[in-house]
Amino acid sequence: MGRLIECVPNFSEGRRKKVVERIVESITLVKGIRVLDCSCDAAHNRSVVTFVGEPEAVKKAAFGAVKTAAKLINMERHRGEHPRIGAADVVPLIPLSGTTMEQCVILARELGAEIAEKLKIPVYLYEEAAFSADRRNLAAVRRGEYEGLKKAMELPARRPDFGPSRPHPTAGATAVGARPPLIAYNINLDSSDLQIARAIARSIRGSSGGYPGVKALGIFIEESATAQVTINLCNYREISLAQLFERVKGEAALRGVGIGSSEIVGLVPAEALIDTAAAYLRLQGFHPGQVLEKRMAEE
Amino acid sequence: MGRLIECVPNFSEGRRKKVVERIVESITLVKGIRVLDCSCDAAHNRSVVTFVGEPEAVKKAAFGAVKTAAKLINMERHRGEHPRIGAADVVPLIPLSGTTMEQCVILARELGAEIAEKLKIPVYLYEEAAFSADRRNLAAVRRGEYEGLKKAMELPARRPDFGPSRPHPTAGATAVGARPPLIAYNINLDSSDLQIARAIARSIRGSSGGYPGVKALGIFIEESATAQVTINLCNYREISLAQLFERVKGEAALRGVGIGSSEIVGLVPAEALIDTAAAYLRLQGFHPGQVLEKRMAEE
Repeated sequence: MGRLIECVPNFSEGRRKKVVERIVESITLVKGIRVLDCSCDAAHNRSVVTFVGEPEAVKKAAFGAVKTAAKLINMERHRGEHPRIGAADVVPLIPLSGTTMEQCVILARELGAEIAEKLKIPVYLYEEAAFSADRRNLAAVRRGEYEGLKKAMELPARRPDFGPSRPHPTAGATAVGARPPLIAYNINLDSSDLQIARAIARSIRGSSGGYPGVKALGIFIEESATAQVTINLCNYREISLAQLFERVKGEAALRGVGIGSSEIVGLVPAEALIDTAAAYLRLQGFHPGQVLEKRMAEE
Repeated sequence: MGRLIECVPNFSEGRRKKVVERIVESITLVKGIRVLDCSCDAAHNRSVVTFVGEPEAVKKAAFGAVKTAAKLINMERHRGEHPRIGAADVVPLIPLSGTTMEQCVILARELGAEIAEKLKIPVYLYEEAAFSADRRNLAAVRRGEYEGLKKAMELPARRPDFGPSRPHPTAGATAVGARPPLIAYNINLDSSDLQIARAIARSIRGSSGGYPGVKALGIFIEESATAQVTINLCNYREISLAQLFERVKGEAALRGVGIGSSEIVGLVPAEALIDTAAAYLRLQGFHPGQVLEKRMAEE
């Protein structure tokens, strides 16, 4: 468990449970892989699987899942709200403890080449794994969606990075990428004032000049009647949860409001919490090798 | 790596490196065990090994080490400052992530019974594993040391918990116990005033009415010319590093002094830092299963 990579593939099937089960089976088949989550969305007719393992195992499991999806999903018959270009629509690789973005980029390109070669499915590399800046944005890669892809791929600018320059007759195309881990983090204000939550969100999010890699919104939680700053932290290695919490606390204080509590939605890498503890305790000369579980994982 | 137990056995040999190496070999032989540290003290003629693994593997490795020590160390010839009763002098088991003190107590008693039965070495159970209150204190168990043991063991009060009621002719006796993990934690004051560090140490340590399970001293660090509160935290599950840090910060403030930094000496269980982050972030509804690495370790 020293070198962990997370993979969160999206498949264009959210209604036929049996199909999704078969796809998940092909992932769990691989030794050393753990499936952490699988959510089907009938409205979007789409499912998202989250699994983790060591690099080579993740590559093997991801390929198996794409192969199974290509076998069982026919894009000619697929209808759904969410933008998509293929049966295995997107396959992002995410570095966790003991792995780097560079390793995920290399793995994503190897995986993409293998999918194209063995399954004859055109592959686009996106985000960190993209060969060119115009492919970094997934929305650009998916423009036109499955229905528009055949025509779009005739344009040189839309040629895939690997594989045939026309969509697979039933599986379409697949986008394979590498991206940073994302922490879904909410901070609840001691207030029901939505405007304050929105102002704080504006002050911290990258798109309005705040922290790069931080997405934030101000929302109102009915049940508790509290205003909440809901955050997606995409680069916890640069900005710690401690920095975010203290920044929001400061911005709230300027508006005469305190912090009630905060919550982490879903999973969080141990590293993000360990860095936060180290920051608050002002630890000097601390290194991850001092964490027993990390030392155990070292080879 | 879901269920970790730490074992820190002490052996009555700190001069013949070959002997210590053979003992460590018998530990590393066991699958799934990692030796994290091994320190020999020639003056005390004693060595301390730190290793970690899952319960059954730890029991197996500990037994192997005691057996090897009994084979290679002759207490009739042993001289050394440190109090000791046998070749394998003490074998403490410590619960880490995913294990409880109760499990360590059971494991210690199983290990003690096995050592007595198969190696014919009398075994005393101490600290949490002790059958009676008067055996909890290791010093009481070791009273008289190896040299006085034969005579002492004639007294009913000194009968071992397992095995023969006389010392093993060359290996003596062994104390097997279970104790909480210990975090060595130092907090550096923004001051060179040793008296303030001492006053703060008094205010937090259990022996003078502070936190139970907390040992603390005020000392002066020459190199940095700062006063330091040096702490042994023996129950981080009851008192978090966050509580200790904030309490010391408060006590220091009352004396007009701030906190410079803090440091963790040696190893720390991830849990202790994760709990600290959760406390500072005021996390609500947080459970360890949200930590990716923990989720990975779950079976």
